[in-house]
Amino acid sequence: MAKAQETTPSDPAVIGDSKAPRTERGRRTMRAILDAAAIEFGDNGFHQASISDITRRAGVALGSFYTYFDSKDAVFRALVRDMSDQVRDHVAPAILSAPDQIAAEQAGLREFIRFVRDHKEIYRIIDEAEFVDPESFRLHYATTADRITRRLRKAADRGEVKGDVSEVHGWAIMGMNVFLGLRYGVWSEDETPDEIAKVVAKMLKEGILRSPDDRAMSEVKT
Amino acid sequence: MAKAQETTPSDPAVIGDSKAPRTERGRRTMRAILDAAAIEFGDNGFHQASISDITRRAGVALGSFYTYFDSKDAVFRALVRDMSDQVRDHVAPAILSAPDQIAAEQAGLREFIRFVRDHKEIYRIIDEAEFVDPESFRLHYATTADRITRRLRKAADRGEVKGDVSEVHGWAIMGMNVFLGLRYGVWSEDETPDEIAKVVAKMLKEGILRSPDDRAMSEVKT
Repeated sequence: MAKAQETTPSDPAVIGDSKAPRTERGRRTMRAILDAAAIEFGDNGFHQASISDITRRAGVALGSFYTYFDSKDAVFRALVRDMSDQVRDHVAPAILSAPDQIAAEQAGLREFIRFVRDHKEIYRIIDEAEFVDPESFRLHYATTADRITRRLRKAADRGEVKGDVSEVHGWAIMGMNVFLGLRYGVWSEDETPDEIAKVVAKMLKEGILRSPDDRAMSEVKT
Repeated sequence: MAKAQETTPSDPAVIGDSKAPRTERGRRTMRAILDAAAIEFGDNGFHQASISDITRRAGVALGSFYTYFDSKDAVFRALVRDMSDQVRDHVAPAILSAPDQIAAEQAGLREFIRFVRDHKEIYRIIDEAEFVDPESFRLHYATTADRITRRLRKAADRGEVKGDVSEVHGWAIMGMNVFLGLRYGVWSEDETPDEIAKVVAKMLKEGILRSPDDRAMSEVKT
């Protein structure tokens, strides 16, 4: 009884207004449709992609599509939610196992850039949501920023970060991560995710203002 | 002779592949077309907006449009470049008159959010460029990040910020500014641009790690 009610947050059963699959086979079919939709929408955009392209790529019958989704809009909406959840689930273990909050933000960015390199289509899909499904677009960013803000607030309560961290910090960190993912994950891979995350962690830790220590260091060098 | 060659960076004469107006009246006409295009593309999106909607809104004849632009694509491309230049020109005086680089970044963000509140359409237009004209989209962000990186490098040379500031910092700061502009400029105005810019400046100055000083402060309070 308890078993049947168990769902993980990224379980396709709870994605948007799609119809929840009741069997393991149904979950696999829905997963195949979402993965195929990611490639079709990513490659061709929402307007060019068709339901039959998606089912052909997924290797499922057209009828199976309608078992789970009412329309192309519905599968797009489910996909945005699914990608948002996939990012969260991909970065969560690294964040949770980090020794402190700066290390957690560093690990989160590193894993995000790694995820983006394997799922470059995520940018085009979420960005197109601004036009195709503005509510999903807004929900994705509001949810992500809120998650960052909440973990910063908890870290402030633990005394790890400054007590005045707020929603502004949550949006600022999300914005950094989104654009660093675009630049170093999608456009070009000329820096390692690890290196980029280290640079940002240092900035979050101590800022970029040159300190008296930095001056002493450079005087020693010269 | 020298006078005739003078152009400011945001002079419509140098926008993309549009045809340069040669007279003051021509410049005013081109400006009216670009301003009308911003509203049409912002309200209706690229695909719904038509050249005749733009000329009607601008109060110019259809022939005048073709004096300056070859197509709807051409005016869209010119508009992305124009908005990018407008942002730069709007924030530049505040950045240049700031006493140091942290204050410059603070002033830049404050003025950017103010600009966005008066030009909310900028997000939809630049974001739609990702689909309508990917080269313009890429150029806008690459140019903006490069400008931030260059001013940080100069500040490092002056000894105002840490010597290791790099392109990663440029992209990180641009990303923060873009998402803070979306959240506090377009979506809602529940915090003042001044307050948001102060929070970010503090983060850039000293990071978010809780310092021994912060601990001492909170012990005094409790």
